[in-house]
Amino acid sequence: MAAQRKLSPLPFTHVKLADRFWAPRIEVNCAVTLPKEYAMCEATGRIAAFDLKWQKGDPNPPHVFWDSDVAKWIEAASYALATHPDPRLDELLNGVIARIAKAQQRDGYLNTHYIVFERAGLDRRWTNLRDNHELYCAGHLIEAAVAHYQATGKRALLDVGCRYADYIDSVFGRGEGKLRGYCGHEEIELALVKLYRVTGEERYLKLAQYFVDERGQQPHYFDIEARRRGEDPARFHFRTYAYNQSHLPVREQSVVTGHAVRAMYLYSAMADLANETGDASLLTACERLWHSVVGERMYLTGGIGPSASNEGFTVAYDLPDETAYAETCAAIGVVFWNHRLLQFDGDGKYADVMERALYNGTISGVSLDGAKFFYQNPLASRGDHHRQDWFDCACCPPNIARLIASVGGYFYSTDAQGVWVHLYASSEADVGALGLKIRQTTSYPWDGRVKIEMELDQPRAFTLHLRIPGWCERHTVHINRTRYADGQPVNGYLAIRREWRSGDEVVLDLEMLARLMQANPSVRQMVGRVAVQRGPVVYCLESADNPVSPLDRITLPLDMAWSVEYRPELLGGVAVLHGEARVDDISWSGGLYEPARPIRRQPIEITAVPYCVWDNRAPGEMRVWFRS
Amino acid sequence: MAAQRKLSPLPFTHVKLADRFWAPRIEVNCAVTLPKEYAMCEATGRIAAFDLKWQKGDPNPPHVFWDSDVAKWIEAASYALATHPDPRLDELLNGVIARIAKAQQRDGYLNTHYIVFERAGLDRRWTNLRDNHELYCAGHLIEAAVAHYQATGKRALLDVGCRYADYIDSVFGRGEGKLRGYCGHEEIELALVKLYRVTGEERYLKLAQYFVDERGQQPHYFDIEARRRGEDPARFHFRTYAYNQSHLPVREQSVVTGHAVRAMYLYSAMADLANETGDASLLTACERLWHSVVGERMYLTGGIGPSASNEGFTVAYDLPDETAYAETCAAIGVVFWNHRLLQFDGDGKYADVMERALYNGTISGVSLDGAKFFYQNPLASRGDHHRQDWFDCACCPPNIARLIASVGGYFYSTDAQGVWVHLYASSEADVGALGLKIRQTTSYPWDGRVKIEMELDQPRAFTLHLRIPGWCERHTVHINRTRYADGQPVNGYLAIRREWRSGDEVVLDLEMLARLMQANPSVRQMVGRVAVQRGPVVYCLESADNPVSPLDRITLPLDMAWSVEYRPELLGGVAVLHGEARVDDISWSGGLYEPARPIRRQPIEITAVPYCVWDNRAPGEMRVWFRS
Repeated sequence: MAAQRKLSPLPFTHVKLADRFWAPRIEVNCAVTLPKEYAMCEATGRIAAFDLKWQKGDPNPPHVFWDSDVAKWIEAASYALATHPDPRLDELLNGVIARIAKAQQRDGYLNTHYIVFERAGLDRRWTNLRDNHELYCAGHLIEAAVAHYQATGKRALLDVGCRYADYIDSVFGRGEGKLRGYCGHEEIELALVKLYRVTGEERYLKLAQYFVDERGQQPHYFDIEARRRGEDPARFHFRTYAYNQSHLPVREQSVVTGHAVRAMYLYSAMADLANETGDASLLTACERLWHSVVGERMYLTGGIGPSASNEGFTVAYDLPDETAYAETCAAIGVVFWNHRLLQFDGDGKYADVMERALYNGTISGVSLDGAKFFYQNPLASRGDHHRQDWFDCACCPPNIARLIASVGGYFYSTDAQGVWVHLYASSEADVGALGLKIRQTTSYPWDGRVKIEMELDQPRAFTLHLRIPGWCERHTVHINRTRYADGQPVNGYLAIRREWRSGDEVVLDLEMLARLMQANPSVRQMVGRVAVQRGPVVYCLESADNPVSPLDRITLPLDMAWSVEYRPELLGGVAVLHGEARVDDISWSGGLYEPARPIRRQPIEITAVPYCVWDNRAPGEMRVWFRS
Repeated sequence: MAAQRKLSPLPFTHVKLADRFWAPRIEVNCAVTLPKEYAMCEATGRIAAFDLKWQKGDPNPPHVFWDSDVAKWIEAASYALATHPDPRLDELLNGVIARIAKAQQRDGYLNTHYIVFERAGLDRRWTNLRDNHELYCAGHLIEAAVAHYQATGKRALLDVGCRYADYIDSVFGRGEGKLRGYCGHEEIELALVKLYRVTGEERYLKLAQYFVDERGQQPHYFDIEARRRGEDPARFHFRTYAYNQSHLPVREQSVVTGHAVRAMYLYSAMADLANETGDASLLTACERLWHSVVGERMYLTGGIGPSASNEGFTVAYDLPDETAYAETCAAIGVVFWNHRLLQFDGDGKYADVMERALYNGTISGVSLDGAKFFYQNPLASRGDHHRQDWFDCACCPPNIARLIASVGGYFYSTDAQGVWVHLYASSEADVGALGLKIRQTTSYPWDGRVKIEMELDQPRAFTLHLRIPGWCERHTVHINRTRYADGQPVNGYLAIRREWRSGDEVVLDLEMLARLMQANPSVRQMVGRVAVQRGPVVYCLESADNPVSPLDRITLPLDMAWSVEYRPELLGGVAVLHGEARVDDISWSGGLYEPARPIRRQPIEITAVPYCVWDNRAPGEMRVWFRS
């Protein structure tokens, strides 16, 4: 892999989605999700916390990660504002930002929990980096500041973020009298790289680099810090620093461990730093860790982190379905990280993972009406798992909102030779550097035909890289209705170099078959099981369409035939799959356990719907993996 | 069911086990488990707590359920002493009991947590019956007192128990100025019935009756109590009083709910009270609840309670294997309750469940060397579940110790017509009332042939009830080498009435086949799966014998043939099962997920070992249920 990225993502502000998958979600995100999340932040005291009026005995004590919920909402709302000008949202943002700015302490510190809640108040700040999320909250504030500045040009929050970052820079580092710490929950690292990119201030980059480099060094800072608090470091609730990826220096890590969101945010920062500094050793670590995640620990949906107890990873090939934690934020982290890795060489394996997470395990995190959220995204349910209005720990709702609001940013990149198309959806993109507008017309992800029209200010020779997804076994390309058969995809991209003219039309046909997938037999929970995928979309069966209980009685023969039906009225418009499966005879007499006898199987017509839209109808069972 | 019991259990002191299953466990229990548990109680401060010297700032603050751990150890040690006279153990018991007696307050109160730990001290007693286990600890103290008195004739602890019970009687009830409460963790109810039986004091019975009758009445005591503490009752951690079976009056309960151990102890008390008071409505409730447990919620091992979050029940037919909680104490509770129900009519269905739990889900709770304990007894493991030396909440180790020390008490009952044999093992029983000694000679549970020899002071006409287990499809009986074919078993027992003479010999042959079992198809986790059982013993595969990973790759064809091999040197002497199963081809190339293709299966020789002895060798995978 190149040590620095060859590709640059085209910002989401340059991509206008007009499709039936993302565009309605972006609209609902603006119309429902963002107002609702703001209202929840208000109702729970998260916004009022910045007024610093909370006193002991009041309800709703500011929790250590509250500030980050508000910050992520600001980031999401800023992205929305950038594509959907809205004076009221603009005002709302100005108001919240003013309250936040007022809460900032003279030295730049800004954390509502420590300012108002901790008994010893500000003296306690930075005394528990391991558990208390201060730098994590700072990171989200900085991301919000960058987003708001980019969306509006206003410096109010950016100045707050810079002052806070400057203050943090004065506190942490290797210099005399500085704290040699880093955050238990990674986030500030990638935020500081963003701040560096927008301000050009190298000290932010160096601070990010310090945090990443220092992580996991010995003597271990979390040991030192715990002893300073008078605590035995061995009594750390999560037992091992693998929980927060500080068990080893990051360059020595090769197995993904611990809390899944933390891991993804750290690895994203490592990719960012590799690019900014040319430090190839960080990319080498990323590649090892990528194989550990994608080759051994990722759900078919792109979700990661099977275990609730650490919100994260266990061992290789441990992928239970019904008890899967698979936090929405973790799948979003998969998108962040893979999108960053994709920019280095344009290797489609990263785009494949990004697309898998985008169409399945991230977007499942929000209901079609935009008002309810999954924290956990299991791959089977007995009917008791439902999206919620909000959570005490509300990281996922604003995280999915910021992803949706900026999803256009994952579609394209540019490089010195031209443009890369990573994702497909009806849309218009403005590739200013090439004087180019690209219009995609397609029913993707429900159909594999994509028409790409070029609008150019003048004829221009450049390379158009079209992604041929890993799930696609056959594809054809026509340029101006002539079959294009020159060359094969390399690393998942077909490179078409020519002089392009306005009005040129490329039609890409990706064969999109419903296919039964199976897992590596080392995944003990999935031995003998199959799941249906079509294109990038993973399907599931729900009770609403398949009145069989338990759904586990259904088996999917390997040779079963599928038919596809696009149902515009169903679940926001989805392609459903029909097929003749088998169902175990239910007849049973006697006790809970009986000597085994052969089970008869009957044919049964089944209907599968995309996993990402499950639990949007009457509550019932859901299942992705079936016996075959 | 008869409203009062027709049968009376023959005390364990009258049954001397000389077999190769129980006798070695009883020896190890005396030689290793009891000393170790005492040492752990000492090392953790549980015994010193009774000296009432703990002060704020000291390590090891007495926890709300600590007293019960010591009490259960005293009960277990007393049972051991009754069958294995041991002056040193006797002295040890005297010493502990003296320390406990000294801790008793003038009014009879005795709870180390409240006496030394609670800031407001004794004023806080009885303010949180819902959560704080005071009456539960009292119950175990009373059970210990009864056991020690019965074993030694000494009244020291019995007097403590009576004083405490008298005091509790003065505090709780429906009278003016009394607290109308009951314990969140049932236990005192059955203990008071024991105390009543040994002392003849009716007030103890009435107090037990009050606790059982009051449970779940409205207005709800736990609501009242929470409000008195200034707490919102709705903020109960477990949300619903179904957690502690107080959501409804006990006679209105028909679905087993909540914490599994609590449920079993409550139901045991209900059976006891039905017998003592003739209140058939309690038995009717027990029967409904029995069907809810045994017909819908019990593991093949007799374990119950799939969920860790409430240490208990979820919904019908929810029986995950790898994540099963199946607490050792809960399976012990299954034994207690079914043993009580068995005494009413001698219905073998209760003995079947009792035997299932005894040979599988209870005894799995302790290692063969007697030194390590399972709290949870899952039916599959990826190799990361192992017995521990001890637990912060150490209910299981002394519970399994008291069960083993008194297991002989589950073998026989007497009634007006004669004697009932519930369980089989080489042993001698002294049925004094009939002037009868019974000698069993058998390799049970490894073989189904049981020779029963009678020694009588004089010829006597009585009925010998022989249990024909539910798992047995064919049996024969010979009396004095003559085939006995008069009559069929009724409700699981063959009644042989005749004039018995000393030297009479009955040979019972129970056909004991290795059989594949399947679960009701409503158990979604077990659809398409089978497990091997032979006699009362459930088998599992362990990595130690079957080097296939994951073990889930193995399938067991319905028609597979099994051979039995008794291996005296293995795992304390067990019958292992051999058979030719199938194993999925491991060959795999490519990523974590690939389009499905047919999997080839190869024959594989497998060896199954009894579930109850798993995890006694090198750590590895274990599995009970396999695809078929």
